[in-house]
Amino acid sequence: MSAISRFPVPELNDLPDDMRERILAVQEKTGFVPNVFLALAHRPAEWRAFMAYHDALLVKDTGTLTKGDREMIVVATSAINQCLYCVVAHGAILRIYEKKPLVADQVAVNWRKADINPRQRAMLEFAMKVCERSHEIDDADIAALAPHGFSAEDAWDIAAITAFFGLSNRMANLTGMRPNDEFYLMGRVPKSKP
Amino acid sequence: MSAISRFPVPELNDLPDDMRERILAVQEKTGFVPNVFLALAHRPAEWRAFMAYHDALLVKDTGTLTKGDREMIVVATSAINQCLYCVVAHGAILRIYEKKPLVADQVAVNWRKADINPRQRAMLEFAMKVCERSHEIDDADIAALAPHGFSAEDAWDIAAITAFFGLSNRMANLTGMRPNDEFYLMGRVPKSKP
Amino acid sequence: MSAISRFPVPELNDLPDDMRERILAVQEKTGFVPNVFLALAHRPAEWRAFMAYHDALLVKDTGTLTKGDREMIVVATSAINQCLYCVVAHGAILRIYEKKPLVADQVAVNWRKADINPRQRAMLEFAMKVCERSHEIDDADIAALAPHGFSAEDAWDIAAITAFFGLSNRMANLTGMRPNDEFYLMGRVPKSKP
Amino acid sequence: MSAISRFPVPELNDLPDDMRERILAVQEKTGFVPNVFLALAHRPAEWRAFMAYHDALLVKDTGTLTKGDREMIVVATSAINQCLYCVVAHGAILRIYEKKPLVADQVAVNWRKADINPRQRAMLEFAMKVCERSHEIDDADIAALAPHGFSAEDAWDIAAITAFFGLSNRMANLTGMRPNDEFYLMGRVPKSKP
Amino acid sequence: MSAISRFPVPELNDLPDDMRERILAVQEKTGFVPNVFLALAHRPAEWRAFMAYHDALLVKDTGTLTKGDREMIVVATSAINQCLYCVVAHGAILRIYEKKPLVADQVAVNWRKADINPRQRAMLEFAMKVCERSHEIDDADIAALAPHGFSAEDAWDIAAITAFFGLSNRMANLTGMRPNDEFYLMGRVPKSKP
Amino acid sequence: MSAISRFPVPELNDLPDDMRERILAVQEKTGFVPNVFLALAHRPAEWRAFMAYHDALLVKDTGTLTKGDREMIVVATSAINQCLYCVVAHGAILRIYEKKPLVADQVAVNWRKADINPRQRAMLEFAMKVCERSHEIDDADIAALAPHGFSAEDAWDIAAITAFFGLSNRMANLTGMRPNDEFYLMGRVPKSKP
Repeated sequence: MSAISRFPVPELNDLPDDMRERILAVQEKTGFVPNVFLALAHRPAEWRAFMAYHDALLVKDTGTLTKGDREMIVVATSAINQCLYCVVAHGAILRIYEKKPLVADQVAVNWRKADINPRQRAMLEFAMKVCERSHEIDDADIAALAPHGFSAEDAWDIAAITAFFGLSNRMANLTGMRPNDEFYLMGRVPKSKP
Repeated sequence: MSAISRFPVPELNDLPDDMRERILAVQEKTGFVPNVFLALAHRPAEWRAFMAYHDALLVKDTGTLTKGDREMIVVATSAINQCLYCVVAHGAILRIYEKKPLVADQVAVNWRKADINPRQRAMLEFAMKVCERSHEIDDADIAALAPHGFSAEDAWDIAAITAFFGLSNRMANLTGMRPNDEFYLMGRVPKSKP
Repeated sequence: MSAISRFPVPELNDLPDDMRERILAVQEKTGFVPNVFLALAHRPAEWRAFMAYHDALLVKDTGTLTKGDREMIVVATSAINQCLYCVVAHGAILRIYEKKPLVADQVAVNWRKADINPRQRAMLEFAMKVCERSHEIDDADIAALAPHGFSAEDAWDIAAITAFFGLSNRMANLTGMRPNDEFYLMGRVPKSKP
Repeated sequence: MSAISRFPVPELNDLPDDMRERILAVQEKTGFVPNVFLALAHRPAEWRAFMAYHDALLVKDTGTLTKGDREMIVVATSAINQCLYCVVAHGAILRIYEKKPLVADQVAVNWRKADINPRQRAMLEFAMKVCERSHEIDDADIAALAPHGFSAEDAWDIAAITAFFGLSNRMANLTGMRPNDEFYLMGRVPKSKP
Repeated sequence: MSAISRFPVPELNDLPDDMRERILAVQEKTGFVPNVFLALAHRPAEWRAFMAYHDALLVKDTGTLTKGDREMIVVATSAINQCLYCVVAHGAILRIYEKKPLVADQVAVNWRKADINPRQRAMLEFAMKVCERSHEIDDADIAALAPHGFSAEDAWDIAAITAFFGLSNRMANLTGMRPNDEFYLMGRVPKSKP
Repeated sequence: MSAISRFPVPELNDLPDDMRERILAVQEKTGFVPNVFLALAHRPAEWRAFMAYHDALLVKDTGTLTKGDREMIVVATSAINQCLYCVVAHGAILRIYEKKPLVADQVAVNWRKADINPRQRAMLEFAMKVCERSHEIDDADIAALAPHGFSAEDAWDIAAITAFFGLSNRMANLTGMRPNDEFYLMGRVPKSKP
């Protein structure tokens, strides 16, 4: 098996309690430990801040972005940043949230051709500008989102998710973070029923 | 169901015999008709030249490029050209030829991080130069392939496959060519045995 | 004399009959053998597909693109791809078809400043998008051609010529294909009359 | 006075205690409240994660990066991202830590011409790669830092600071975050002595 | 002290009279000799042409561009060209002419966020196009300036200043021209009064 | 006949004596008045500085650059800047000085493929860096020229010519300066002898 990081990866048992507990909870829910939890655990203080930031953006009830919307932003921007971990891992989650087995590959290769709605298209257009040319953002960009039902707060959400995963993409590229093999197939086939 | 092309798509029965026969043969072998055969059939003369060129490059016994190598070139360069059809369709074939369910997604997102060997890495580095900066190609590029066992003829093969799929990518992007749904899952799961 | 290709160039007598006959016919008509016919003849199967594709796009009676229009697309896109062979050889043909001795140099350096009409300007703008950013093509691009009298079929022609010469540019850059000296002057001076 | 953010900015008194206390502490130390503390306070959960991440990277005793090194990375990468807030605010801190009144402007305009040492030059070269082409990072980049005394852990620090401020730059560009006027002059003139 | 140029720098006393006189006049007025006068003096004939061109563009009474406008163009375009000398030296002059101690840093980092008026914003947008994509200039660019009160002659001024400093930026980057330390602080603090 | 400039073009008789005399001298020598002399004459002070700069760089006896070398630099860099006037006009002069009817088109399309010597190749590589990425110039670039017999003074010449024509390219693009028809054919055919 290939290494999951270019840097040392701690053993679960050597981690502080709060980190181990969260990781075990994820394992319980997902069936395996996503490698990002282990690779970044090399730096506990950064790990905690990273997870707190992640939760502040992706686990919340305000705004009009659906969980699927958020993952779609992650996949589209991570693809442009050529981040293998984020495209594969969040592609899996996107398929599951959107209940569309094809959408992650479409968004990763060329979001303009994906089976998504005009509202999502406008959302991704703004996300890509934040990702690639944030210095050119102006009021008109936020105004262009309004006809699709996005408030200024939604614009903040889109931008913040893009910005946070820009950080994540760079850390994954630094560490050579390897996506778990399980992600590649998740959400592609209907769960077999008993 | 979404349209497979922005342009008219002929009925199989309305096609000239030679075209229909080839398409039926592919259907027989693959189990479905890949949309490229139908979308490009809108122009029979171009279709015939396209297929002849394809066969000259991908169906041949000379050189050291394996079938998997060739598909890997297609996936890596089509990803940079953001061609949905070619990444998805040839990604499927790549998985099958290489017998590696993860390799196509890896190569499509960031070939530098893929589970491929140094020889394939050198091959893709040259292919990317042909794809993106062919005007800078010089003798040194071909010489750099030699230590990996690639002859000048292999360099031609790598370049010609890249060049041909650059054409293909542009036609797929023009027509908005839609990959068949079947491709997305092919080669990801072991064939069920009776 | 400099070599016309980095790869072996076959003797005319060693070529299969169909290839030699076509080449002799071209020589008869043009007065010399354009080097592309010899340089690509190193690979007969590819040569035949290349010529068939070329003829399907450039030798046909349908659509509204004139012969001059087609060559203009070749020159403008080959210049951006920095392909010496195609700019020089097709620049010569462009001068002859358009009966304008200056137009090829203008289009090659900066098509926006060339002595061409608004219809040709719109045509080249679309061709350049196919050449450089085909993943962004959408219905609006094709619609923008309509006011200039271009149908969707014409859009296909423009894109296909661009795509095919993108392939050709890459093969010429791979082989270091040298334009025949004769091309440089063709169409620049009125034929002397007896 | 111009607004410090395109989004609502909370009153200090309306903030949760932990946030207000930290902000007052900063004000005590610096003499004013840097606008980033107020502009991002619009989203308390994100604010807390942001500050935790910041402290994990910039307030620590491990590694060989000096405080000046860290600020230099921030200024160089924020300049490429054209982030006004970070260049101006961290430029001020850089001047103070390095005790060089000219260095921040030099690094912001063209770090290659700055009065910095070869070790810092290698550090910035790696930071710029993380900032602009993180998908191309490989082992050789980390190895190239070693002759300058940088360990792999230092490489993580350089990359993580770059990645975190890439997030920060995008949030500042989103909000149109305005640097406090005080920053522009800080560290440029010797403190007057009584 | 660091060298002010990678090339030999003449002594003031060794210069021809006309050059020395001008340099002494500048020294008289400014309080020091800006390094550009000495670094370029290595080539007297070029120096004279450079100064004549500079004066023709920056020292004149026609047109609607203020002295501040002209310096703003220099700072914005020199920043994109990453020319340390011109950003620092002309940033100082910009602060003085505009009587705004913050404006030079703002324009150098991201002119879109600077405290400038819509007329200056349109002026810089045109200047940046001349700087980066002059081959795309057309009548519409000049027409877009008119609503802000800029005539075609003003467009020439904006473009010519941009073009001249593009030359200057390249010469400063060639010579590694070092800005005088004095420039960094000029215009940032009110002159102390007796 | 098309206009030679987007701006007013003065009549020869309305020009100051010194300008008219120089223009007549050029006409005497060349057989026609190159449009740059008339188009830029709209601004006499700039015209004089432009011509003085031109002469300081192109009409001199020091250094090892031949007249052909200098024109080659102009053609290669003007082609990248997509300046129609300079490529066509200086292409003509290049053909004449080098006594090579094909070289200008080769250098304009792709200097890497031109029939030039390794010394000229190194010269153009440096010129292109000055043209496109002057902020990255360092001592190593100048050192790389030495094995080809270029001194540091020659490096200055190469850079200064590139920088000056970068200015010229932008002015020609601003004015839409039209090359005289005569240039296109100059140097392509041997002068007929009586």
